[in-house]
Amino acid sequence: MVETPGKYAGKIPQTIRWQDGELYLIDQTRLPGEVVEEQQRSVEQVRDSIKRLKVRGAPAIGIAGAYGLVIALRDKLHLDRGAFIEEMRKQAGYLESARPTGVNLRWALRRMLKHGDGLTDASPEQVLQALLAEAIRIHDEDRRLCRNIGKAGKALIKEGMGILTHCNAGSLATSELGTATAPMYLAHRDGVSFRVFVDETRPLLQGARLTSWELLQAGIDVTLICDNMAATLMAQGKIGLVMTGADRVAANGDAANKIGTLGIAVLAHHFGIPFYVAAPSSSIDHDTATGKDIPIEERDPEEITHWGGQQTAPDNIKVSSPAFDVTPNELVTGIITDKGILHAPYIEAIQARYPQNRATP
Amino acid sequence: MVETPGKYAGKIPQTIRWQDGELYLIDQTRLPGEVVEEQQRSVEQVRDSIKRLKVRGAPAIGIAGAYGLVIALRDKLHLDRGAFIEEMRKQAGYLESARPTGVNLRWALRRMLKHGDGLTDASPEQVLQALLAEAIRIHDEDRRLCRNIGKAGKALIKEGMGILTHCNAGSLATSELGTATAPMYLAHRDGVSFRVFVDETRPLLQGARLTSWELLQAGIDVTLICDNMAATLMAQGKIGLVMTGADRVAANGDAANKIGTLGIAVLAHHFGIPFYVAAPSSSIDHDTATGKDIPIEERDPEEITHWGGQQTAPDNIKVSSPAFDVTPNELVTGIITDKGILHAPYIEAIQARYPQNRATP
Repeated sequence: MVETPGKYAGKIPQTIRWQDGELYLIDQTRLPGEVVEEQQRSVEQVRDSIKRLKVRGAPAIGIAGAYGLVIALRDKLHLDRGAFIEEMRKQAGYLESARPTGVNLRWALRRMLKHGDGLTDASPEQVLQALLAEAIRIHDEDRRLCRNIGKAGKALIKEGMGILTHCNAGSLATSELGTATAPMYLAHRDGVSFRVFVDETRPLLQGARLTSWELLQAGIDVTLICDNMAATLMAQGKIGLVMTGADRVAANGDAANKIGTLGIAVLAHHFGIPFYVAAPSSSIDHDTATGKDIPIEERDPEEITHWGGQQTAPDNIKVSSPAFDVTPNELVTGIITDKGILHAPYIEAIQARYPQNRATP
Repeated sequence: MVETPGKYAGKIPQTIRWQDGELYLIDQTRLPGEVVEEQQRSVEQVRDSIKRLKVRGAPAIGIAGAYGLVIALRDKLHLDRGAFIEEMRKQAGYLESARPTGVNLRWALRRMLKHGDGLTDASPEQVLQALLAEAIRIHDEDRRLCRNIGKAGKALIKEGMGILTHCNAGSLATSELGTATAPMYLAHRDGVSFRVFVDETRPLLQGARLTSWELLQAGIDVTLICDNMAATLMAQGKIGLVMTGADRVAANGDAANKIGTLGIAVLAHHFGIPFYVAAPSSSIDHDTATGKDIPIEERDPEEITHWGGQQTAPDNIKVSSPAFDVTPNELVTGIITDKGILHAPYIEAIQARYPQNRATP
């Protein structure tokens, strides 16, 4: 764990660390019971860590994959340049196959490959150094994105406020400050006193296992609740702000995020509580016009019918388990990005902030 | 299990059965994995079944307690009348101590005592017979209440409809048809084709473990979801009606029920879906003016932080776990009682339907 600048009472856990030429990952499958940072000694180990969800969260997986490619190639320096570049492609494919649907993993590895391919006159040693520099750049860029989200959003957090969050859009999913958690970490560093209510987030309990743990490590006042308790806390006036992450934001501001987010947005609307989504600019999908265009996949029923190996629902029960939901833009008070907070009307706000992505008429 | 009259594809599980002078209870702690009906051979066993939640649900506990008193006294017929009546009081107190806060248990046992005390010239044999008749009457009355709730509510269920329910207000909590489930069982018997979405109901999973099981037994089309998925199903148009139970209804129609009910009511309101509460007349508390007068107790944090003995949240995490919530009357489309469906304005509707309970000005 690395202490970030500032006066934290605690430390923000860093899920990925590159130090003295070595990669370290927190094994998130053992959280919160055990906090184990594993040194990654081979590309096979990195791939396994990604595959087994020891490292999770789209940005974190991308960063781990980029460093993994460096680890894959560091004992291949005896190859000639052609064979080395060939090996680079092969190892990138091997890493990518750990999570074939992981958009960020593919993005990061292709960025690495493009960088390596571009160095037409470089030796294997030079390519390896350049790839490491690119991995560090990918990591740094994510860190900066999260910091900028934090700076954009921290003023929303007022003294004495209760904040509700859902799932894990924290340091464990990204680097350093996380997305939805970044404003919290920065407000906490600034000495603002507030408390965070964390939805446990069924079925996989990312809120209970991960978000509550990382906020506690940083010294933030955390209270865990079941997903179905948010309404009562809101009715009791205990929640002044909702802040969640977003997997994808459509061009009209509709936001796809972990299942349960839509319900919270409706509740916040009903109780007059601001509902903010935090997302890096890269999550704004200019090619998706509205949330209706985002397909919702179903997850494995066993995640609901079984607990720690024990069956808690009848045999052969039908299950509906959408992986995420889409919150329509009219329920979103603002989208906290690394380029500032976007407000409705979102089509116009997004086009104004990202003019290069404007759809041609 | 007893098949109730009609053309069910399946059978409605009967959690309490009195047959040939013996009491049988389904051990609900083993559901849905194992369906075991246990003969209750002693008052100690009955008390233990109540204490360990083998039988649960306020009406069911009251009925079990009433039969338990009969079991306690059937081998005490050698006592003289004075000692027998004394024993009756002692055993009632012993049974009541199994769930000291169980209003229905106390109510049923006091009704039994009053009945026994009233038989001033009767022999122990005659008192015992009268107590058994009273226990059967309590059981029959509950059965009738549930049937009448079913008759009042079944017309709300239309062909092809999706119904959402929460927690267990079913046959396992009462007798025969349950409360929130009674309209479903009767509509199903009438050949109406519909499907029920059951919230798993965190933290104790009564929906996953009990409601989905009993509806399946009856041959009803059931789909299990996590509590946080209801909003998405509503947004997709899959839910046409919400039907839940109620622990207590205030004189203005505010309804206290299992935690999570308020959130569903807000969602139903947002998506324009009718939200009904099913409750026997006895659950209408004429002495409680509004839901604000109902104190909300907190449950044990371990129910949230642990799963089947495994810890799934950080050490020493703060937890908020309200046992139930209060849905304000403006979110309640109707209250389905054994005396028909009540509609807003509820103060007037309740006073008109229960004039004897009208508060004196």
